[in-house]
Amino acid sequence: MKDNIADTGIKMTRRSLLGAAPFVAAAAGLGTERAVAAEAPVKASNADKFPPLPSFKFSLENSNSQWKGAGGTAKEVNTSNFPLSRSIAGVSMRLQPGSLRELHWHAVAAEWAYVIEGHVMTTVVSPDGTVEKNEFGPGDTWYFPRGHGHALQGLGPGECHFLLGFDNGDFSEFGTFSITDWIARTPQRIVSRNMQLPEKVVAGLPRGEVYIVQGKVPTLGAPFRNANLEPSQLTHKYRLGAIAPRRFAGGEERIVSSVEFPIQTTLTSARMDLEPGSLREMHWHPNSDEWQYYTKGRARVGMFGAHGRVKMAEFGPGDVCFIPQGFGHWIEQIGGDRTQIVILFNNPLYTEISLSQWLAANPAGLLEDNFRVTSEVIEKLPKAALGIAK
Amino acid sequence: MKDNIADTGIKMTRRSLLGAAPFVAAAAGLGTERAVAAEAPVKASNADKFPPLPSFKFSLENSNSQWKGAGGTAKEVNTSNFPLSRSIAGVSMRLQPGSLRELHWHAVAAEWAYVIEGHVMTTVVSPDGTVEKNEFGPGDTWYFPRGHGHALQGLGPGECHFLLGFDNGDFSEFGTFSITDWIARTPQRIVSRNMQLPEKVVAGLPRGEVYIVQGKVPTLGAPFRNANLEPSQLTHKYRLGAIAPRRFAGGEERIVSSVEFPIQTTLTSARMDLEPGSLREMHWHPNSDEWQYYTKGRARVGMFGAHGRVKMAEFGPGDVCFIPQGFGHWIEQIGGDRTQIVILFNNPLYTEISLSQWLAANPAGLLEDNFRVTSEVIEKLPKAALGIAK
Amino acid sequence: MKDNIADTGIKMTRRSLLGAAPFVAAAAGLGTERAVAAEAPVKASNADKFPPLPSFKFSLENSNSQWKGAGGTAKEVNTSNFPLSRSIAGVSMRLQPGSLRELHWHAVAAEWAYVIEGHVMTTVVSPDGTVEKNEFGPGDTWYFPRGHGHALQGLGPGECHFLLGFDNGDFSEFGTFSITDWIARTPQRIVSRNMQLPEKVVAGLPRGEVYIVQGKVPTLGAPFRNANLEPSQLTHKYRLGAIAPRRFAGGEERIVSSVEFPIQTTLTSARMDLEPGSLREMHWHPNSDEWQYYTKGRARVGMFGAHGRVKMAEFGPGDVCFIPQGFGHWIEQIGGDRTQIVILFNNPLYTEISLSQWLAANPAGLLEDNFRVTSEVIEKLPKAALGIAK
Repeated sequence: MKDNIADTGIKMTRRSLLGAAPFVAAAAGLGTERAVAAEAPVKASNADKFPPLPSFKFSLENSNSQWKGAGGTAKEVNTSNFPLSRSIAGVSMRLQPGSLRELHWHAVAAEWAYVIEGHVMTTVVSPDGTVEKNEFGPGDTWYFPRGHGHALQGLGPGECHFLLGFDNGDFSEFGTFSITDWIARTPQRIVSRNMQLPEKVVAGLPRGEVYIVQGKVPTLGAPFRNANLEPSQLTHKYRLGAIAPRRFAGGEERIVSSVEFPIQTTLTSARMDLEPGSLREMHWHPNSDEWQYYTKGRARVGMFGAHGRVKMAEFGPGDVCFIPQGFGHWIEQIGGDRTQIVILFNNPLYTEISLSQWLAANPAGLLEDNFRVTSEVIEKLPKAALGIAK
Repeated sequence: MKDNIADTGIKMTRRSLLGAAPFVAAAAGLGTERAVAAEAPVKASNADKFPPLPSFKFSLENSNSQWKGAGGTAKEVNTSNFPLSRSIAGVSMRLQPGSLRELHWHAVAAEWAYVIEGHVMTTVVSPDGTVEKNEFGPGDTWYFPRGHGHALQGLGPGECHFLLGFDNGDFSEFGTFSITDWIARTPQRIVSRNMQLPEKVVAGLPRGEVYIVQGKVPTLGAPFRNANLEPSQLTHKYRLGAIAPRRFAGGEERIVSSVEFPIQTTLTSARMDLEPGSLREMHWHPNSDEWQYYTKGRARVGMFGAHGRVKMAEFGPGDVCFIPQGFGHWIEQIGGDRTQIVILFNNPLYTEISLSQWLAANPAGLLEDNFRVTSEVIEKLPKAALGIAK
Repeated sequence: MKDNIADTGIKMTRRSLLGAAPFVAAAAGLGTERAVAAEAPVKASNADKFPPLPSFKFSLENSNSQWKGAGGTAKEVNTSNFPLSRSIAGVSMRLQPGSLRELHWHAVAAEWAYVIEGHVMTTVVSPDGTVEKNEFGPGDTWYFPRGHGHALQGLGPGECHFLLGFDNGDFSEFGTFSITDWIARTPQRIVSRNMQLPEKVVAGLPRGEVYIVQGKVPTLGAPFRNANLEPSQLTHKYRLGAIAPRRFAGGEERIVSSVEFPIQTTLTSARMDLEPGSLREMHWHPNSDEWQYYTKGRARVGMFGAHGRVKMAEFGPGDVCFIPQGFGHWIEQIGGDRTQIVILFNNPLYTEISLSQWLAANPAGLLEDNFRVTSEVIEKLPKAALGIAK
């Protein structure tokens, strides 16, 4: 235990969302921020010396930050409504059959997606002039590098629902560049020359951004207007749901990094399926933030932010959770149905260190000293990573 | 068209220069910021919900932020007088024959240059101890990595005029480190030991920064004081004006990235020559900002910043234009003389996507849906990049 | 000399700690900030136009920002008490024999260390599941990548004193994650499942962070609890004091970059030993900040920050000095005993340019023009780097 704090007068002028001076921290107790008051704090002292951890939960599907049209809907989460998520922004989008999210690009973010339900077609153009058109069904993902022009169109039957992720938490502040918006705001003489259309035809083009417009269900084999274009060297599609998972006693996880999906250079994606009653053990990610979206079932998540500070909350379908780089966390499945979580990490390579792995990777004597327990207790600790415990 | 905006109450507390929340944006009209009032806005509604785009034009040659001496002049543009240019700063410098921009280095920026008129000699030392001395004429460029010590001297005949570019828009705030300033502010006993000169000689060295000093026209074959030094492994000189251009119907462009000029690891440079009446088509750069300096002729530039926001202005000799990463733009040549633009991109690799390239890279049916026009109209659109249209 | 400043009206709205607009700077004199008033300023005019250079000295061993316990002590320096040191933070730590700096990780910093006195053992786990246990004595260094779990334990005989360095000047604000803190703040039912211990045993674990705890002197050959774990592919230990130094007339320097120590991917470390009366010559580092800790003897350091601004101060055992990237500096040994400095650079590759090297790398005529002196004076200047002059 700490015997003495000689001086805790460190100024807090550079405080961030995420922390405070560690030696001040050493003297502090529990800055309890639990959204679920399931357990009493084990210690409470000096917690007022630290900025509390900010909220790590956002209910995206219940959000009123949304767009609704005849052809589809979009709901958004970014730093404007979820300040902690500084590295990743997300959108839940639904498109009716034939509905088109028009040609557009993102100036300062790459776009990743995971299809939850239904089918969608995409087209994308790369700066090297290559092109790709793909169809996606449930479990499939795409990745469009920053600034590459693309479009999305519902294939039917039925609505298509997919999750979009962007590698920039401020994404929405930097805007989406839609082709109709661009053309409507450009002098007609310029558009006429560039599109090789008479000015009177240009005058009949949409006079503002159409964003999502109802179109025809596309013919899948339809050629590009220039049939001689080369296909992309790297594919933009990866079937996350189709890979062999890492299997554990309590569930399974599928992880796709840039090793498997080379064009996905800024993110790693994953899907975790938790059996009823399971526990994704205590762990952290040394190299990345984690952004979770719950597609099925419920779970309780605990996050540890040093200095005795924790957050705990329940998550269900449509909720988003954000864990900053290096913060400890665990996921306790709750409810009788399987829980499924789609996850983004803001690093193209995946890393984790788990509590059980760490306990196995030290001499018994060191752990006896650290926990002040007997060798008999230490002998019971796990000797390998649990992953997802039953 | 958008049917409904369920909620536009996203807080604008994190607004930046470049944007705002996209779903709010979706409801917005034209935030007209046109410097040339040539066309009426096509739509106007809710434009007040967005921060207007900042100015994208700076008249460098008319600037009063300058230094004047007997041996030369320097005019500067950086974020202090042109806030949008966060990634690149520039200086227009003129040296008389023999005039020396003294030995100096830049703590936090690499230096690139393009010679507009006349001839200049440079010397540069690298941390590995290698050296290079070069002569430059019109159309030639140099690149000195961050922190490498260098000097510039006019060769005559006549004045030499060159454009300097720095890979840091705040460059000037972090200062230029000149050898006379350094020596004048260092204790004479230290300088005496370091330069191996008696203190009384040190006392006679310049007592402050000389910056540009009139000297003799250098003898080109003069050896380095240590004639045994190894030459640089990578050259600091590239003759941009001498490469074969990409030729288009309306002009030509020369582009030099780190592929061609390996030491230029933080920038790509280019020179565009536009025939009278030509149009550099609508396009954007997925990976970089663009910094333009006009050397000859005139042009009108339009910039698109999403959310219906545009800027338009006329540029002529000595003007600087800045286009943020991913922002759409076009250049319309005006006036009877060829227009020439020297350009920097803040990325060592060059990328672009043009409107015509994109239109060619989608199925006709998708474009019919997007623009709500018939297949006859879509059939007329270009099927390949125009580049510089006639 | 400058003949005229046409306009110095550049706004200082974006001033940083490190600088101001250069053309304003050109007109300015000496912003004298000398901590040791040994020399009179050579010029004084307009110094008020620039922000003064901030303090570049911090007396770490005299700091009252510290933790004291029966088993050890820790003193810290970071941006909260030394604002200039934005890239590197440091801790001076002492451990008694058997004392354990418990299992912990750092969310946003890699940890480097140099052992000054005594012996210490470390254990570290990597995300790939590999492990390493090492012993360290005086002159040895370690490097633990960001987020990797580790522990430190004194080996005796006697106290162990070591210097810790972190590649993030704000390090302490983002916190240290200790295993007892994490476990104490996690619901007991979760810990019970994860550690495979009955809840009543979990209830007996430490109820708060132990930080440094008195334990037994470890048995060096003790195995990991899981004896089948693979050893780390890259070692975390490098014996800095054991390498062959670069020898100069006035002392020697040992430099270890990522070339020699591959896991040290964010830092270069060095140790400089200065003979009495020697001078580490005027130089700068183009690619990195420099963080110094004095272990023995005394020295005077001068730092040059452009715009005529300098700082000068004396340093002795336990003092820390910080030189920003590209800032000129020199070190004058003082006192009758050897001076020893342990140094970190925030770049995995080492670069420097020295005044003498630069003077040798130019034609004599250019230097005559630059300094306005005769060829006889220039002939006396050094023709090779001095390194550490006698």
